[in-house]
Amino acid sequence: MRMSELSARSAVPVATIKFYLREGMLTRGEATSATRAEYGEEHVARLRLIAALAEVRGLPLARVRDILALVDAPLDDPIQAMGRAVGALPPYVVPDPDDAYPRAQAALEALGLAFEPRFAAVAQLESAIAAVESAGLPWDEEVVRRYADPMIRVAADEVAPVGGMTVNDAIAYAVLGTALYEPILLALRRLAHHHLLATGRVRARRAGDGSSGHG
Amino acid sequence: MRMSELSARSAVPVATIKFYLREGMLTRGEATSATRAEYGEEHVARLRLIAALAEVRGLPLARVRDILALVDAPLDDPIQAMGRAVGALPPYVVPDPDDAYPRAQAALEALGLAFEPRFAAVAQLESAIAAVESAGLPWDEEVVRRYADPMIRVAADEVAPVGGMTVNDAIAYAVLGTALYEPILLALRRLAHHHLLATGRVRARRAGDGSSGHG
Repeated sequence: MRMSELSARSAVPVATIKFYLREGMLTRGEATSATRAEYGEEHVARLRLIAALAEVRGLPLARVRDILALVDAPLDDPIQAMGRAVGALPPYVVPDPDDAYPRAQAALEALGLAFEPRFAAVAQLESAIAAVESAGLPWDEEVVRRYADPMIRVAADEVAPVGGMTVNDAIAYAVLGTALYEPILLALRRLAHHHLLATGRVRARRAGDGSSGHG
Repeated sequence: MRMSELSARSAVPVATIKFYLREGMLTRGEATSATRAEYGEEHVARLRLIAALAEVRGLPLARVRDILALVDAPLDDPIQAMGRAVGALPPYVVPDPDDAYPRAQAALEALGLAFEPRFAAVAQLESAIAAVESAGLPWDEEVVRRYADPMIRVAADEVAPVGGMTVNDAIAYAVLGTALYEPILLALRRLAHHHLLATGRVRARRAGDGSSGHG
């Protein structure tokens, strides 16, 4: 297809497609003349992937480029690739030069999970716990378990298919899965809260009269 | 304490504190003379909360203000408050004027959860599913359950304390908890992946030789 059709199919403006080409985020089509190139389904898929990362995840373009680079030219090591992918996702936390993450370290040790301070998610966990504490929200071993146990199970289910994949496929799956299933998790949690409150399963006390008024 | 001490205690520059005062995000201290005011622990706590929302969650200032407003002057209705809080959190999705969210609707119906198209998380789920599909990642009933079942359990545990709270406290807890436990969930999932890969529990096939080389 020509660029105009690629634009129509992907709902991405021609000027934006040209920008992605210049930035190397999209491969050039096959040249059919000095001024024309032919694009294929892989270009449509790539534009959809860029939109998924940029629009749904709201990632800055530089971070989208980092993630595409990880998928395109995988490192030899899936662990290193995951580490870089996680570093390309928010929250963007400045690492502590002393690798001191006392809150994260305590939580990970209580959970029996590896504490590797260079992995970006350790600094992310540290700052997330500090934020919860700053807001006066509960943070104790029961709360840690509330979040960690389901996430450990989810992660095991997610990682399982990797055993049947080649390293390149595993890296693409791990990098994109890390980025793109997160909004699913968060939306479902928000919807579950809403369901519990909206169906009246849980109600706060109305100061004074003891009834909730939402029935 | 004076403003200079408030700044030192909270690690927030004086100019930023003055900005928050002008914007109504921080209440004024008690005036002790024409040019001096006295600040208390509640001001330190408020500045920490603003930092938690702005820095850790990375929320734009206008969204931080929306969330503070929900906490300060709660609506009478916790469900409405939750709805607005969710609307103040990313992903910022433009609602469909026809309330048509086919992917989210199918998932919610399969899960037995209420489908209320006006609740912002419905549009968020729709776009999150579309992004997963665009990237060619799996999305079927098993995958839906993988994420939904743990999130429904987490939500039930989180919402349980609301039964013992007044409406105002419940709203503050729900609004801040929605915003601030999310980074915890995501960091723990990333750490669980890392743990599974780094401990060699799961390995991809190396094309050709069948060994992984990471052991």
